[in-house]
Amino acid sequence: MLVVKKFGGTSVANKERIYNVANRCIEEYKAGNDVVVVLSAMGKYTDELIDMAKDINDHPPKREMDMLFTIGEQMSVALMSMAMNKLGVPSVSLNAFQVAMHTTSVYGNARIKRIDSERIRNELEQRKIVIVTGFQGVNKYDDYTTLGRGGSDTTAVALAAALHADKCEIYTDVDGVYTADPRVVPTARKLKVITYDEMLELATLGAGVLHNRSVELAKKYNVQLVVRSSLNTHEGTIIKEDTKMEKMLVSGVAADPDAARVAVIGLKDEPGVAFKLFNALAKKNINVDMILQSVGRHGTKDISFTCSDEDADLAKDVIEELMEFESIDVDKKVAKVSIVGAGMQSNAGVAAKMFEALFDENINIRMISTSEIRVTVLINEKNTERAVNAIHDKFDLGEDR
Amino acid sequence: MLVVKKFGGTSVANKERIYNVANRCIEEYKAGNDVVVVLSAMGKYTDELIDMAKDINDHPPKREMDMLFTIGEQMSVALMSMAMNKLGVPSVSLNAFQVAMHTTSVYGNARIKRIDSERIRNELEQRKIVIVTGFQGVNKYDDYTTLGRGGSDTTAVALAAALHADKCEIYTDVDGVYTADPRVVPTARKLKVITYDEMLELATLGAGVLHNRSVELAKKYNVQLVVRSSLNTHEGTIIKEDTKMEKMLVSGVAADPDAARVAVIGLKDEPGVAFKLFNALAKKNINVDMILQSVGRHGTKDISFTCSDEDADLAKDVIEELMEFESIDVDKKVAKVSIVGAGMQSNAGVAAKMFEALFDENINIRMISTSEIRVTVLINEKNTERAVNAIHDKFDLGEDR
Repeated sequence: MLVVKKFGGTSVANKERIYNVANRCIEEYKAGNDVVVVLSAMGKYTDELIDMAKDINDHPPKREMDMLFTIGEQMSVALMSMAMNKLGVPSVSLNAFQVAMHTTSVYGNARIKRIDSERIRNELEQRKIVIVTGFQGVNKYDDYTTLGRGGSDTTAVALAAALHADKCEIYTDVDGVYTADPRVVPTARKLKVITYDEMLELATLGAGVLHNRSVELAKKYNVQLVVRSSLNTHEGTIIKEDTKMEKMLVSGVAADPDAARVAVIGLKDEPGVAFKLFNALAKKNINVDMILQSVGRHGTKDISFTCSDEDADLAKDVIEELMEFESIDVDKKVAKVSIVGAGMQSNAGVAAKMFEALFDENINIRMISTSEIRVTVLINEKNTERAVNAIHDKFDLGEDR
Repeated sequence: MLVVKKFGGTSVANKERIYNVANRCIEEYKAGNDVVVVLSAMGKYTDELIDMAKDINDHPPKREMDMLFTIGEQMSVALMSMAMNKLGVPSVSLNAFQVAMHTTSVYGNARIKRIDSERIRNELEQRKIVIVTGFQGVNKYDDYTTLGRGGSDTTAVALAAALHADKCEIYTDVDGVYTADPRVVPTARKLKVITYDEMLELATLGAGVLHNRSVELAKKYNVQLVVRSSLNTHEGTIIKEDTKMEKMLVSGVAADPDAARVAVIGLKDEPGVAFKLFNALAKKNINVDMILQSVGRHGTKDISFTCSDEDADLAKDVIEELMEFESIDVDKKVAKVSIVGAGMQSNAGVAAKMFEALFDENINIRMISTSEIRVTVLINEKNTERAVNAIHDKFDLGEDR
């Protein structure tokens, strides 16, 4: 069996943790499996590199920033190989040039295009554990690139796809994917299995365990993902295609407090208004999530949408400069709460059940948005915890099934 | 004109010094020249990396050690490019993969085999300052290697040769090459010009300004070297072939206190004794310098040699285990003092004049060794300073010629 294992920065933050990771990998290796390990930079080292760069140049060129960033992962993989050597197991560390990991040209936010897996295969054939730098790639100019947020997860999944690995394990500081945030919902339960699509909805909604890009890539190449803890040997959550799974009505509840609602009241009711508005926001790189348009008074229309707290004021400025309307209102004290479940598509009444849970708690719904496997509501931020618990109870998510 | 400039770790140890180097390079660039900069790791960063590795594994594999080492120079070049960008001048940083810098396979002590200069030429054509990582290379397995001691100097000279640069400037913390160590001899004078061979003898003898390998390489490819200070704009010392130079009788006096004398008395006088002895030392990586063999009493022979203080005891142990003799004596309180000069070859009496200087000071000579352009004597360590001054005066080296 070929297994790709990815460990984040906290898992390799110091000597003790490096040895912990080394031992876990060696256990897998000694069971007769081929092991490829993907590592992030140690602890907060990437932040240290940013500080170092900003001290020299407050706007460092992105090309040089990536050149600087890549040393973080190279440090991790070299030290990990030294630890494995000390433990008597052959290993080799590889950077993006050595793999080789070909990406698009965009510095700071590149996408993986192609992986030459020959070097890795050769090293595995010699029964070495192969330790690969996450987050980094090489573009057509032979320059280092980095993959942006969630980059190391993406590296791991891409390697698993290129090597036709049997599974790709993402090690993190939680035991797996839960029906809700265990810090908020005491009865939250770890899921054994979840589909790619459910995971995608949860990732987008702030469950925070896996980055969207890595899940999308896993779905595209049908890579079996496992999310598990680097601190214990619990089994974790498997993320895979849903063909043979018994579909659960609702898999989990997620909350995202980093949401703001922008309401534009009294826009002219003429064609192109929505296009102009959202096109202007896109140009400023403002990600808009839920959108709601309704008929206003006196032949006008109202448009509301959500974005991150951080972008809300910029969005307001952009709109005020762009078009005419009666009033604009920004509310940052709102949160998104969502239920996700692949079974939802074929079951009526799921949304209604969620709304009932909120009504029971006397929580007002400000906006509603749905997809095939998701229902999201916008509520007052202070009610988040109560809402998540109420919904979790209503769907009996805490009970073992 | 194409100029290669090399700056060591102390020259890029902090923000202020990085900007100092950036400004010096930009000055050259703005004069219309093509500039290639070679950098070492910042300050003591390589030592920090060694500590980091030793903490994980007291005997880290050399291959992984080189993987770790190379991040030091990559950090320097990326930050330097950011500084130049801040100063408004286009530049690009390149590592050993990007150059590409092909070396032999030996980790920790590789030699440069071939440089693909295409990338550098392209960047220079776009009028960028090219900043290259010193000390590192890539071997035929596509692994990082490092060049060992004096590695960044060697990188600079090799690049100058490959690019047919007009000169290769080695920036250091002294103004150039002196007739003697200015800290020991107050009248010591900076040399304007010196030949490769003279510099080679001086480097071997502990003048410490340039590493032998870089001078040998410069001689082989006829690269004009300049040693100068990174702290001021003084002209420095030019190192080149001696064809058009008026040969100086003696160029300088060098002293090396890190010498020990090992005397083996009463060895059997039979063939192969010297071979066996020095072969055994070579296998233990003990570098032997001066060798003296003389006839001993009762049909035996005596062999004396010098090595570094550090190796002396090991040498004694090796010899004691290897062969029979009457007695062995190790004296670490000795120093080598040498005069070097290309003019010496065709001038009789140079050695005699040196011995006279020592006799005038009543300094006893323990061993003598000569080459075509060098005379070295071994004396008691405590007399070093007096000896160097006496010789310097005797040859009038302090006077401008």
